[in-house]
Amino acid sequence: MPKYQNLDAAGAYKKLLALAPQGKAFDFKKELNADRVKAYRVPMAGGLTYSYAAKAVNEATLQVLQELADEQELIEKYKLLLNGEVMNTGEKRKVLHHLLRGQLGAPVLHEGKDLGQFYAGELKRFSEFARKIHREASFDTVVQIGIGGSDLGPRALYLALENWADRNGKRKMKAAFISNVDPDDASQVLSQLNLKRTLFVLVSKSGITQETLANELFVKAKLRAAGLDPAKHLVAVTSETSPLAHNSDYLDSFYIDDFIGGRYSSTSAVGGVILSLAFGPETFAAILEGAHEADKSALEKDIKKNPALLDALIGLWERNVLGYPSTAILPYSQALSRFPAHLQQLDMESNGKRVNRNGEPLHYATGPVVFGEPGTNGQHSFYQLLHQGTDIVPLQFIGFQESQRQDDVEVDGSTSQTKLKANLAAQIVAFAKGKDDQNKNKEFPGGRPSSLIYGKTLIPQALGALLAHFENKVMFQGFAWNLNSFDQEGVQLGKVLTKQVLAGNSGDSALEAYAELLSI
Amino acid sequence: MPKYQNLDAAGAYKKLLALAPQGKAFDFKKELNADRVKAYRVPMAGGLTYSYAAKAVNEATLQVLQELADEQELIEKYKLLLNGEVMNTGEKRKVLHHLLRGQLGAPVLHEGKDLGQFYAGELKRFSEFARKIHREASFDTVVQIGIGGSDLGPRALYLALENWADRNGKRKMKAAFISNVDPDDASQVLSQLNLKRTLFVLVSKSGITQETLANELFVKAKLRAAGLDPAKHLVAVTSETSPLAHNSDYLDSFYIDDFIGGRYSSTSAVGGVILSLAFGPETFAAILEGAHEADKSALEKDIKKNPALLDALIGLWERNVLGYPSTAILPYSQALSRFPAHLQQLDMESNGKRVNRNGEPLHYATGPVVFGEPGTNGQHSFYQLLHQGTDIVPLQFIGFQESQRQDDVEVDGSTSQTKLKANLAAQIVAFAKGKDDQNKNKEFPGGRPSSLIYGKTLIPQALGALLAHFENKVMFQGFAWNLNSFDQEGVQLGKVLTKQVLAGNSGDSALEAYAELLSI
Repeated sequence: MPKYQNLDAAGAYKKLLALAPQGKAFDFKKELNADRVKAYRVPMAGGLTYSYAAKAVNEATLQVLQELADEQELIEKYKLLLNGEVMNTGEKRKVLHHLLRGQLGAPVLHEGKDLGQFYAGELKRFSEFARKIHREASFDTVVQIGIGGSDLGPRALYLALENWADRNGKRKMKAAFISNVDPDDASQVLSQLNLKRTLFVLVSKSGITQETLANELFVKAKLRAAGLDPAKHLVAVTSETSPLAHNSDYLDSFYIDDFIGGRYSSTSAVGGVILSLAFGPETFAAILEGAHEADKSALEKDIKKNPALLDALIGLWERNVLGYPSTAILPYSQALSRFPAHLQQLDMESNGKRVNRNGEPLHYATGPVVFGEPGTNGQHSFYQLLHQGTDIVPLQFIGFQESQRQDDVEVDGSTSQTKLKANLAAQIVAFAKGKDDQNKNKEFPGGRPSSLIYGKTLIPQALGALLAHFENKVMFQGFAWNLNSFDQEGVQLGKVLTKQVLAGNSGDSALEAYAELLSI
Repeated sequence: MPKYQNLDAAGAYKKLLALAPQGKAFDFKKELNADRVKAYRVPMAGGLTYSYAAKAVNEATLQVLQELADEQELIEKYKLLLNGEVMNTGEKRKVLHHLLRGQLGAPVLHEGKDLGQFYAGELKRFSEFARKIHREASFDTVVQIGIGGSDLGPRALYLALENWADRNGKRKMKAAFISNVDPDDASQVLSQLNLKRTLFVLVSKSGITQETLANELFVKAKLRAAGLDPAKHLVAVTSETSPLAHNSDYLDSFYIDDFIGGRYSSTSAVGGVILSLAFGPETFAAILEGAHEADKSALEKDIKKNPALLDALIGLWERNVLGYPSTAILPYSQALSRFPAHLQQLDMESNGKRVNRNGEPLHYATGPVVFGEPGTNGQHSFYQLLHQGTDIVPLQFIGFQESQRQDDVEVDGSTSQTKLKANLAAQIVAFAKGKDDQNKNKEFPGGRPSSLIYGKTLIPQALGALLAHFENKVMFQGFAWNLNSFDQEGVQLGKVLTKQVLAGNSGDSALEAYAELLSI
């Protein structure tokens, strides 16, 4: 059994704190050269590479980060998770999203059921369902009804592959998403659809998500008003114990269970049904393949060979030693426009915690604020603060050698794709090295660290690898901080108070006054 | 002449620091009641109200914030700006976006030209142009080609009013946006259009924005390939000194000048041409009306009667005294889905600065990181960290009593709009008051401050008021910090290095190595 101790109980953490720069910042102008760029790289799954040359670490830092990984037994804890140990200590649940992509540990049994087989069976079922829908050709559009993890991850993946699918003849159906309880969301999306040709995927693990059920009834009312039978237009993705399961109100139902957390569910039926319908089951299988390969690479003990582990530890160094409170995700790929929003949930909902896995208060910073937009757009927006603001924000760049659509134009001797990449390379160096200037308003302090994940082109395998990389990074950070990355008690109080407002019995005068302002 | 002094030279700032809570946080459980909710409100333009009951301020704080506003002469500086003083000290330019909405100061003359008349003239010209296009009815879609301020603000406003326009018979044309230099952006957008029926608005003040020019040539190549004449499908929005001006390559051209900064340009031709085409000139005029009303309300010296000023000062209190490094924008309105992205640019590009207006280094924190997503979606994403993370993030809620489309469904005794509002009210109180629990994992510390901007429904006047409120808030903060909110030198270094990469002469071995990784 590995031992669970808080980060500040680890000897390696004390050594790490002793490496704090103490006013003397890492000297990128001196350190960041071609040799370092070539050396500070780790191959990733899906044909990607993790480059950390522009991170403020040297061999001494990396040595202590390795010691920390070893002392906190991060790989051992990952192995326990893979083997079906109860790692979600708050809710007393196993954590099995890796098993969706293939088996890396012992068979995981629960109440006599082999869960690996269960997940594989559902994958097979919804793959066949998608093929049937494609053969019958009565639907041309699929709409996901879901919120949080049932929306952000699947939506980010869908947007990421649209261009690739169109270019490579993989497009089977269009897709849309309804998530917000704001009625304008569902009303607007539905107003643009031919309901007769639209299939809806209702996604709620519990089957009682307020927003999703309201939107389900919204959709059903519209279907009926159009003279259509909702039971022929809806499929459910839920758990077998939910009211939505085994229910003739749906054309079919596909199952997950309590061991697949919402924000980790993109590679389950939650993402799989809509992605298989939109781009074919082979495309979804390729995403799983990339994710599985990434999961495998995360087993490596040597941090220099394990990109997720290394990324996690450098993040810790930046958060707990250098004291940076936020981090930006900057994909130089329009296809990844909503990938930062997914990572925002993944990271902030997993590690935005103030107690350890036993519920005891922590006395160090945990998960950072995560935000981001695609480049080059962000350059013309918030990069001003990133370059010249008073705080330092660590950056995660993502880029590809080739575009997805291969439809480009040459202007002033370079294609748009080349301009995109030139901007990316330039930003990394500009942030790290800065520029002196007599005019302090034109001076760039530099010292702003970044990493780069790059590959040839954004194909399904690469996307799966990218997704799993960040899942595993967040998992390792949670282990290192000794917290439970897999529950989300912080969402409960709002739910309780909302119900009280709706029932008119909150018993809180301020809450009633706010309800009055909003004319509830 | 008002005096310009750094924040830390102000006597009121020292008094403010002395009010720091020193471990004893503001006690919302005790303080936040119905009386406070009713009292701590300021009417805003456009029928909106600014509620700050859930901010960690009391009468003593407000008193010193008033002193600070007076000592830093924030209103006087605003008046100077309105009168055409050179307030963009870095670029030695006037700052005149308020004048786009109407005149509040003396006539502003530049080289003998009355700029108020110039802006009004352009407004009239593009309003007439829009009417002509609507009459001729040869186009049904308008596409904006622009990046940064030529994209984020106009796009946020367009999305904010789509539902309102559809519901109220104001929809004239569909709109789309091309911004990123990533060729997949333009290629995908164009693949979904009927080019014959599409009018493009090319927006670049300088006429030399790399991304926008690349996308212009992309679009022109596609038009020619479709047998169409680009000169009959493009209009330009630019400055009169740019290469795009007075150019027969465009159907028409509309002008702004150097005194309208990109992120402040939504109420100029930059936002006006596309919004007038999409929703009619009357709709754009209503946005201007709301903005002008907000600009007027920002002249009030009493912070309790000036919502933008009060918002700015409370933000300062949170940033410089309470030490919170980021802030979240949380609109409970799907229509405002991209409004946080606009505010992210507005705030971070304006006040993400480390030198004062004279170029001297500052020794206090300036602009925070700004991020956000619509509620209730965010509740199922990053709110976990906001409620239970180790850092406190101040929150800006926005909500409306009624939906835009008035198309709703009742489930479990309440409409979706009522559920949306109940969630909003519940979150404010949950963040402020928290909840004790024996199980520390289920405990909510509270003490997380928020403000609320609310109104009846999101109509053009309210949207204009909202836009101007935040512009004025950011302006007042910039004055208080004694920095120049109106330049963006932090974007220059990346541009220079990008050109060097494209020319193959960066002279930096690391930069060349990164270019090689990306196969440039």
